[in-house]
Amino acid sequence: MQLSRRAEAIQESPIRKLAPLATAARARGMKIYNLNIGQPDVPTPPEFLQAVAGFTDPVLAYGPSDGLPELRQAMSEYFRRYAIEIEPREILITTGGSEAILFAFNAVADEGQEIIIPEPFYTNYNGYAEMANLKVIPVRTRAEDGFHLPPDGALEKAVTPRTRAMLICSPNNPTGTVLSWDEMERLAAFARRHDLFLIADEVYKEFTYDGARHRSVLELPGLEERVIVVDSISKRFSACGARVGAVISRNRSLMAAILKFGQARLCPPTLEQLGAIAAYRLPETYFDSVREEYQRRRDVMFDGLTKDPGIVLRKPAGAFYMIVKMAGVADSDDFARFLLEDFNLDGETVMVAPAGGFYATPGAGTDEVRMAYVLEAAKIERAMEVFLAGLARYRARS
Amino acid sequence: MQLSRRAEAIQESPIRKLAPLATAARARGMKIYNLNIGQPDVPTPPEFLQAVAGFTDPVLAYGPSDGLPELRQAMSEYFRRYAIEIEPREILITTGGSEAILFAFNAVADEGQEIIIPEPFYTNYNGYAEMANLKVIPVRTRAEDGFHLPPDGALEKAVTPRTRAMLICSPNNPTGTVLSWDEMERLAAFARRHDLFLIADEVYKEFTYDGARHRSVLELPGLEERVIVVDSISKRFSACGARVGAVISRNRSLMAAILKFGQARLCPPTLEQLGAIAAYRLPETYFDSVREEYQRRRDVMFDGLTKDPGIVLRKPAGAFYMIVKMAGVADSDDFARFLLEDFNLDGETVMVAPAGGFYATPGAGTDEVRMAYVLEAAKIERAMEVFLAGLARYRARS
Repeated sequence: MQLSRRAEAIQESPIRKLAPLATAARARGMKIYNLNIGQPDVPTPPEFLQAVAGFTDPVLAYGPSDGLPELRQAMSEYFRRYAIEIEPREILITTGGSEAILFAFNAVADEGQEIIIPEPFYTNYNGYAEMANLKVIPVRTRAEDGFHLPPDGALEKAVTPRTRAMLICSPNNPTGTVLSWDEMERLAAFARRHDLFLIADEVYKEFTYDGARHRSVLELPGLEERVIVVDSISKRFSACGARVGAVISRNRSLMAAILKFGQARLCPPTLEQLGAIAAYRLPETYFDSVREEYQRRRDVMFDGLTKDPGIVLRKPAGAFYMIVKMAGVADSDDFARFLLEDFNLDGETVMVAPAGGFYATPGAGTDEVRMAYVLEAAKIERAMEVFLAGLARYRARS
Repeated sequence: MQLSRRAEAIQESPIRKLAPLATAARARGMKIYNLNIGQPDVPTPPEFLQAVAGFTDPVLAYGPSDGLPELRQAMSEYFRRYAIEIEPREILITTGGSEAILFAFNAVADEGQEIIIPEPFYTNYNGYAEMANLKVIPVRTRAEDGFHLPPDGALEKAVTPRTRAMLICSPNNPTGTVLSWDEMERLAAFARRHDLFLIADEVYKEFTYDGARHRSVLELPGLEERVIVVDSISKRFSACGARVGAVISRNRSLMAAILKFGQARLCPPTLEQLGAIAAYRLPETYFDSVREEYQRRRDVMFDGLTKDPGIVLRKPAGAFYMIVKMAGVADSDDFARFLLEDFNLDGETVMVAPAGGFYATPGAGTDEVRMAYVLEAAKIERAMEVFLAGLARYRARS
């Protein structure tokens, strides 16, 4: 039986594909530091699970297609902390940030149309572009520039008559880069100049360091009709398994269209929304210790990696990832496999995500890996020693 | 800002669009019997919520993209009750039956290709066809035939070089029709003849009456590579708000492709899967009282409606819906509005779903409404009196 072209074309998860090798290494008694996946170890707030357990209706019925009103209200109040006025009707609750991306793609573009995305980018955007039959047009960013936006000329070159939107992610997965306000204003002008939507994945909003505050595209004046925010509680409240996200826009006809997509899938999960309501009602100080902890981890990882003069890395200001460019590595898939199969330091090794999968341009990122700092600082310190030893061994072998 | 063509094209829910009129009627003090939406009143099994509340991990982490292994195992054992051998790896857990449909559509067909569906059909298939850029080709079924399949000639006429699959739903929403084994064998031959996938929505599997047993397309011999089942716990365990479904197939390359779509959205909701595991472990007898209750309701609704000689209705054998064809109604949208706005019997009225939205053929179903028997029998009995009085009044007015 012939499957669809898109079923053949869609990429296997580059983050998950090394899993069998890790399983085999563990079976040989190896200790692995898992830096390959963005699963935080921060506890989910107990208030979340208490709220879920508090559900006592006799029937777990369909909820509203746009989400529970109390959750939309709680999110509206959460945005007010950042001096961002968003009404509950400008928020539609989705099944994870993933569905928010799918809805945004479907609402702004038809088959064959194009979305510009700075690369490297979160690999699952590809999957949703395939499902929506859209073409991703990458704009290259580089380790040497800290993965900040290239000059306007590079953006202009990516535009065609089929371009419908630009998608950014800040704080960024996989680079950790936080766009400056200047960069956001450049993007606003770019969107206006070419009549594009500006879709922003802001799921790492709270994760910014060194006292920097993330500024949302929702703060760009005069861009209300163009801006769509993709949001999620997965990282914000360490509730990745909950699958509660949101799509947010002040463009009313866009939100009306997205509600129709929402009706087609009936509603997002009810119980996990109850947990999300409780989480959004936590005091703002909840994030202080989380932020402090991640900043410490970032510093340990950065200091460890930059001991190697062959590594290109600008200190990222947010999220909990880094893209690490390495001299002496031409095929980071091979290098990541080497770490799991042919290397150990006193019985320990490191699992990283080869960065090629985060690029749309063939051959890009093959000298890079992504690391997530989702382990406690002491473990990261040791993991960096193991990683650098592995890198040295790999270079010596080549 | 121009939205996408599909955002404009996607249909508003015909089931939910009368909601504002119902709200207004209630505000006037009217009592409304809600027969318009398939929200069962059967309690969710307490075991479901107990299992959810039993979650004590510190972190609500990402689960596997294909679902929790224990749930896939529990579903495999559930199928064994029906003498259907399905391995856990032939089951992928989805976020509701909705996502199962989306994944199945995406896996078998590309933009512009066609899926044949007997109409009237579950309206949300349209939404997913829009999102997947597929064309729905309806094959008409009729009240006079109890909405059973038309002769082979009608099926043949629907086939084009772009046809990739046929989608059936049995027991059916919105008609309540249960396909016979003969019909299923005809479909199997049809799928073979034209090299099509056969997608079957079997979410109402347990809801069959008069001692009839639903037979799954998974039981069709020699059709293993073509058959895809779309499943859900929403109706089975009265857990519509949980959003736990599944896509099931013995076609290994199809399941591998669907896993890639699954990876793009990371995982289905974890807590609700824990509830589903507990529900699937309930003894088979759990369904006996549920089935008995729905059969009683169906009989009360059928007996009530067939008192009117101008109603065409064959007694449906499953699910909890009926499509009611009425002489003297030319525009059932107008009739449903009339019931909410201009009619009452001693302060009571009935809310039904106009059937036009369940048809892809323009103008079809305008003399029909869908009713769901999701109220207790005594209320349905009274609701039928109110409905028939409303119908008589509407006819007299025309």
